Amino acid sequence: MTDQRQGGLLMAAEIAEQPEVLRRIVDNGWGPIREVAAKIAERQPRFVLLAGRGTSDHAALYAKYLIEVRLNLPCGLVSPSTLTAYGARPDLRETLVIAVSQSGGSPDLTETLTVARECGATTLAVTNAPGSALAAAAELTVDVLAGPERAVAATKSYTAELLALQLLVAAWTRAADGTADGAVDAEPAAARRLAEAAAELVGRRDEVVELAQRYRFASRLVVTGRGFAYPTALEAALKLMETSYVAAHAFSGADLLHGPLAMVDPEYPVVAVVPDGVGATAMAPVLQRVRERGADLLVLGGAAAEAAGSHGFVLPGGISEELHPVVDIIALQWLALEIAVARGLDPDRPRGLSKVTETW
Amino acid sequence: MTDQRQGGLLMAAEIAEQPEVLRRIVDNGWGPIREVAAKIAERQPRFVLLAGRGTSDHAALYAKYLIEVRLNLPCGLVSPSTLTAYGARPDLRETLVIAVSQSGGSPDLTETLTVARECGATTLAVTNAPGSALAAAAELTVDVLAGPERAVAATKSYTAELLALQLLVAAWTRAADGTADGAVDAEPAAARRLAEAAAELVGRRDEVVELAQRYRFASRLVVTGRGFAYPTALEAALKLMETSYVAAHAFSGADLLHGPLAMVDPEYPVVAVVPDGVGATAMAPVLQRVRERGADLLVLGGAAAEAAGSHGFVLPGGISEELHPVVDIIALQWLALEIAVARGLDPDRPRGLSKVTETW
Repeated sequence: MTDQRQGGLLMAAEIAEQPEVLRRIVDNGWGPIREVAAKIAERQPRFVLLAGRGTSDHAALYAKYLIEVRLNLPCGLVSPSTLTAYGARPDLRETLVIAVSQSGGSPDLTETLTVARECGATTLAVTNAPGSALAAAAELTVDVLAGPERAVAATKSYTAELLALQLLVAAWTRAADGTADGAVDAEPAAARRLAEAAAELVGRRDEVVELAQRYRFASRLVVTGRGFAYPTALEAALKLMETSYVAAHAFSGADLLHGPLAMVDPEYPVVAVVPDGVGATAMAPVLQRVRERGADLLVLGGAAAEAAGSHGFVLPGGISEELHPVVDIIALQWLALEIAVARGLDPDRPRGLSKVTETW
Repeated sequence: MTDQRQGGLLMAAEIAEQPEVLRRIVDNGWGPIREVAAKIAERQPRFVLLAGRGTSDHAALYAKYLIEVRLNLPCGLVSPSTLTAYGARPDLRETLVIAVSQSGGSPDLTETLTVARECGATTLAVTNAPGSALAAAAELTVDVLAGPERAVAATKSYTAELLALQLLVAAWTRAADGTADGAVDAEPAAARRLAEAAAELVGRRDEVVELAQRYRFASRLVVTGRGFAYPTALEAALKLMETSYVAAHAFSGADLLHGPLAMVDPEYPVVAVVPDGVGATAMAPVLQRVRERGADLLVLGGAAAEAAGSHGFVLPGGISEELHPVVDIIALQWLALEIAVARGLDPDRPRGLSKVTETW
């Protein structure tokens, strides 16, 4: 295995850094995040719009689920082109617009926040670059404290965005409920448990190396999940595309049944992300249909994961369904990296990409 | 070619029916659609949420662009699971919730409308089945008048949903502006031009048969577009997946650059949908990057389409960028069908699928 580990050293180092990043957010980020949450709660927004690209778009989607379920606010993902290319000028009073970006360097997101602010929105940048143009365009900023990210394939900035957004929604929910000044905060303790689970997953790289052999020659792959696990499926597919060049599709379980299931066959492996909870229950009939298609099925889930598929990966326990996405992706980051190195590719040098992508 | 045309007779017949369906919507649908639009405009919704699955989700996304650009209203796509599985109960006063479904038969969408109505939303079903459970759950209904759709791969119901939604947004915009009772409506004339363009594209099947030969052995494919053309890219990818089992990915031009571009190489064909307009202008640098990756590039676009890629397909002229999606998909429906028959598959019998997909 030693030779294979020559590629992706940067990516591997940043994957391994994630427990430390999560602890840093609890120790240094929780205070500033609560302050931002209090300001947002004061405004009493009625609608929330989120914007992001690539990996950060998946973090935005995670936040969308949290905001809908925890805050009971209607929530949408912005199509930046309507504001930037088509010149839409919506009425955004009582609306919070959140842009998520590791680099804060994509002009379309900065323009989205600038326009949103002109249109009356409260604007928030969630970024790893608090000195960026995006942060300057926003009224409020949350620094996700991931430290400099050098690998082209984002890893630690994704989990940092997820935890920062989760803490933000938790603090906002309590501020909105008027329970912000109650007993000792539960959030830091739960986040510390996440850092432990992240360390566990970082330590299970060898297990993933074995799994990766199975996909050495797979050119196509489906990743599926539902609810809170759907962003994990999307992010896993993106990592596989950008490092291993696998044609990896992500579908929510429901959408998979509305058409794409037809392409699944024994040559088309399926990876299901089903940590215990409501999403896993909703996925049970989907997995049944996938098995009927004769697909090779890897299940990442609770204790029953191994029995549910052709093979399984048991995710860490003691974490709520809502928090699972913050750590579950780590197993799939390793998987993307290990498939790439098994193919003799260097995931630190994906062809055709650079670290900061500027789109208009 | 005769033998190859044995498969997909149902799908082919419904593709060919589209000009007639579009004319029917103008002749019989415009009046009822204006009445629904007037009722919506009276409520003065401040936020719009859309829900759909599969093909109808792409129609919902098209409506999202229209509502953002024409009505300047913030707009989001519902994640049905937050309402149905996770029990979210958002404050939906001043919110319009639109569910789009050919069959009106998917329980999760019906429950989404039921919950939305309880939460204070104005609810609208856009469906080909005005007697369905979905329509019964909604306060308002638009019948898309596509006639019975029997092929598993939806074609005419998609273009019907697009035109019905486009007319709805046009009538609503004019009602909101107070120009609803002005001179002769421009919308029916524009829609009749669409029916002509649809007939032109239906008649160009032979051109597509030739194109399809090129993809006979392609196992993976990317479809890309931006703005109004992005739903066309998504729907084309879905048709290819469900009929030809090609691993077809759709990406907005911007998202393609944020990672997935790495997997594109000379073995990985790219199809770009770029009818003349703002979206095509925004796509120019994306196509440049795709060409740099050495990709085989099919461009569906304006008069310059043939020069922009390895090969081209010139879309009908005399149609605004906003209306193009209603007809452009027809060329790609033929493409999906013809790739399937070239592979000896029957697109009327996609494996593992049935016409009405029930998801919860």
